[in-house]
Amino acid sequence: MRAVVFHGPYQVSVETVPDPGIEDPGDAIVQVEAAAVCGSDLWTYRGQAAVAPGSRIGHEFLGRVIETGSEVTGLDIGDWVVAPFRYSDGECSFCREGLSSSCLDGGFWSREVVDAGQGELVRVPHASATLVKLSSDGSAPPIERIPDLLALADVMPTGLHGVRNAGVQTGDTVVIVGDGAVGQCAIIAARMIGAGRIIVLGGAHPDREEMARANGADAFLSVRGDDAVAAVRELTSDELAKRVVECVGSSGSFDTALSLVRPGGTVGYVGLPHGVNVDLARLFRGNISISGGMCPARDYLPELLPLVDSGELRPGVVFSYFGTLENAPEAYRQMDRRETVKALLRPGNPVTSR
Amino acid sequence: MRAVVFHGPYQVSVETVPDPGIEDPGDAIVQVEAAAVCGSDLWTYRGQAAVAPGSRIGHEFLGRVIETGSEVTGLDIGDWVVAPFRYSDGECSFCREGLSSSCLDGGFWSREVVDAGQGELVRVPHASATLVKLSSDGSAPPIERIPDLLALADVMPTGLHGVRNAGVQTGDTVVIVGDGAVGQCAIIAARMIGAGRIIVLGGAHPDREEMARANGADAFLSVRGDDAVAAVRELTSDELAKRVVECVGSSGSFDTALSLVRPGGTVGYVGLPHGVNVDLARLFRGNISISGGMCPARDYLPELLPLVDSGELRPGVVFSYFGTLENAPEAYRQMDRRETVKALLRPGNPVTSR
Repeated sequence: MRAVVFHGPYQVSVETVPDPGIEDPGDAIVQVEAAAVCGSDLWTYRGQAAVAPGSRIGHEFLGRVIETGSEVTGLDIGDWVVAPFRYSDGECSFCREGLSSSCLDGGFWSREVVDAGQGELVRVPHASATLVKLSSDGSAPPIERIPDLLALADVMPTGLHGVRNAGVQTGDTVVIVGDGAVGQCAIIAARMIGAGRIIVLGGAHPDREEMARANGADAFLSVRGDDAVAAVRELTSDELAKRVVECVGSSGSFDTALSLVRPGGTVGYVGLPHGVNVDLARLFRGNISISGGMCPARDYLPELLPLVDSGELRPGVVFSYFGTLENAPEAYRQMDRRETVKALLRPGNPVTSR
Repeated sequence: MRAVVFHGPYQVSVETVPDPGIEDPGDAIVQVEAAAVCGSDLWTYRGQAAVAPGSRIGHEFLGRVIETGSEVTGLDIGDWVVAPFRYSDGECSFCREGLSSSCLDGGFWSREVVDAGQGELVRVPHASATLVKLSSDGSAPPIERIPDLLALADVMPTGLHGVRNAGVQTGDTVVIVGDGAVGQCAIIAARMIGAGRIIVLGGAHPDREEMARANGADAFLSVRGDDAVAAVRELTSDELAKRVVECVGSSGSFDTALSLVRPGGTVGYVGLPHGVNVDLARLFRGNISISGGMCPARDYLPELLPLVDSGELRPGVVFSYFGTLENAPEAYRQMDRRETVKALLRPGNPVTSR
């Protein structure tokens, strides 16, 4: 099969690699119909993650089940499914608590499993618990829904996880730090929850501002540090925001998030942290909470799928690059340079419309 | 008047200093009947806080109103009152939200106000909002209730604040890190809320273990680091605890708290942090939240006072040294060496019984 392989900083290529097969009776093999490139893949791409050269890459995919192990239940050959960005067994104490991200027998694509999302085939452990059918009969979704459904693998649940962890409720003012795909999904989630006002801190890219405003941002600020604090103070009558969602994970963005939260408020954090150290004394006096972490995406799927089906939720708007799997190097290049927000790659024919 | 003065590391003395007077029409002068030494005073005592030599010290006191400014309402001369460890105006947006600790016109004893709790007299700004009468008619409390009432100035609300911020609910297993007065009050608070099991991490002082067990601790562990993790794993069938309350504020104790919290859980933090830096990556994977901060003690008083009046709540058990104000140097020496848990000092006659 063909798959994207990481070879070192700024080097990804599409290569022929061994096809996976069933290794455990709980496995299924999924033929990928659409895969996405995640902002967190860029940490690998840039050489900022501890990923060995030669590793596969990608953790957001949907496709069709083409083979099942003998113990797989609830899935038939041909079923269209989406995979969350981590597999989980559905049985351990964490899965039962709704925290599949801490599954005791779970794992990550391209780590505990060789295959990753950006390839033609993926072996999925604990397939019955991990994969979620896109419809009750497993039939193919309308092609125009594929981007929305693919966004459920990671970025949409992650954005919602940040918003929920920040404690956003109807009418609240919320600040969202980040204008990437997760930030955009946090905007969508905040709107879905009924936030009163959504203030977004982003970069100086008109396309991202336009996307943010279309998703529901009331204000978009392309400033940093003290300027950002001054701008948010002005927008909030000096009150800042009790609800801040950090969707980047860099030291600078987390620092900004902490500067924008009102005493008594909460920073919901979902940006994969790189070198973020928080001085607890900075939180203490103002009773600041921080809450969030790696999204248990699997647990959000039953809630989000019906909203996509009904058309209420359209997170596929975050995709701005559409290509085939063979376009992966170009997709990475464009995402790295922030020329595009998020890429959707199809091993078969590219999705050209939504 | 006589008051305790900090002169440098390990140097406190009791001296004659100027009497305070009304400076603002909202002020009241309180004649202190009982003052406490706080664990956080030890940071000053040991020279680990940025406190200028010559400063007064102490922030826990109760006493009688002996003078009021022209705009003070609701307080009469002679009323017995308790002061929370920070004064607040009761009017700003934070006070209205129940976060008096962030009052926009509030302040600390011995900082924004020269006087501090360990002295014969204190000028109290925003007296109407800050001071809470010990009974509806302002009459003197029974002498045996004085330790319980004095504990409401700081340690009891602070312990409860930690427990609430950790999210403790009926039946929960909770780990409390710290066996000082705040840790002991957190045990009392956890018991009050109906925690299922209370595990305390403390030192190797039999008197503190005895106090913790009397307050409701089900287990008391005098171990640190990996040994503490192993011991808590054993006590919790390997589950650790979703609710951890950090009552010390040192780097080591916060590290221990983070090691004991189960994925998806929360560390409630109320120990005044000194040099605590949290690597966000350590929280991310397990979805750990941290919540807490400086207790808005004033806001807890209406809830806690009736419980002391009825005898349901006896936080005065944390006092283990009783003396006059002149005994302050000895009280500090004993607390610093952990020979006593907490000291109660009376400018007049010492409280010798409870």
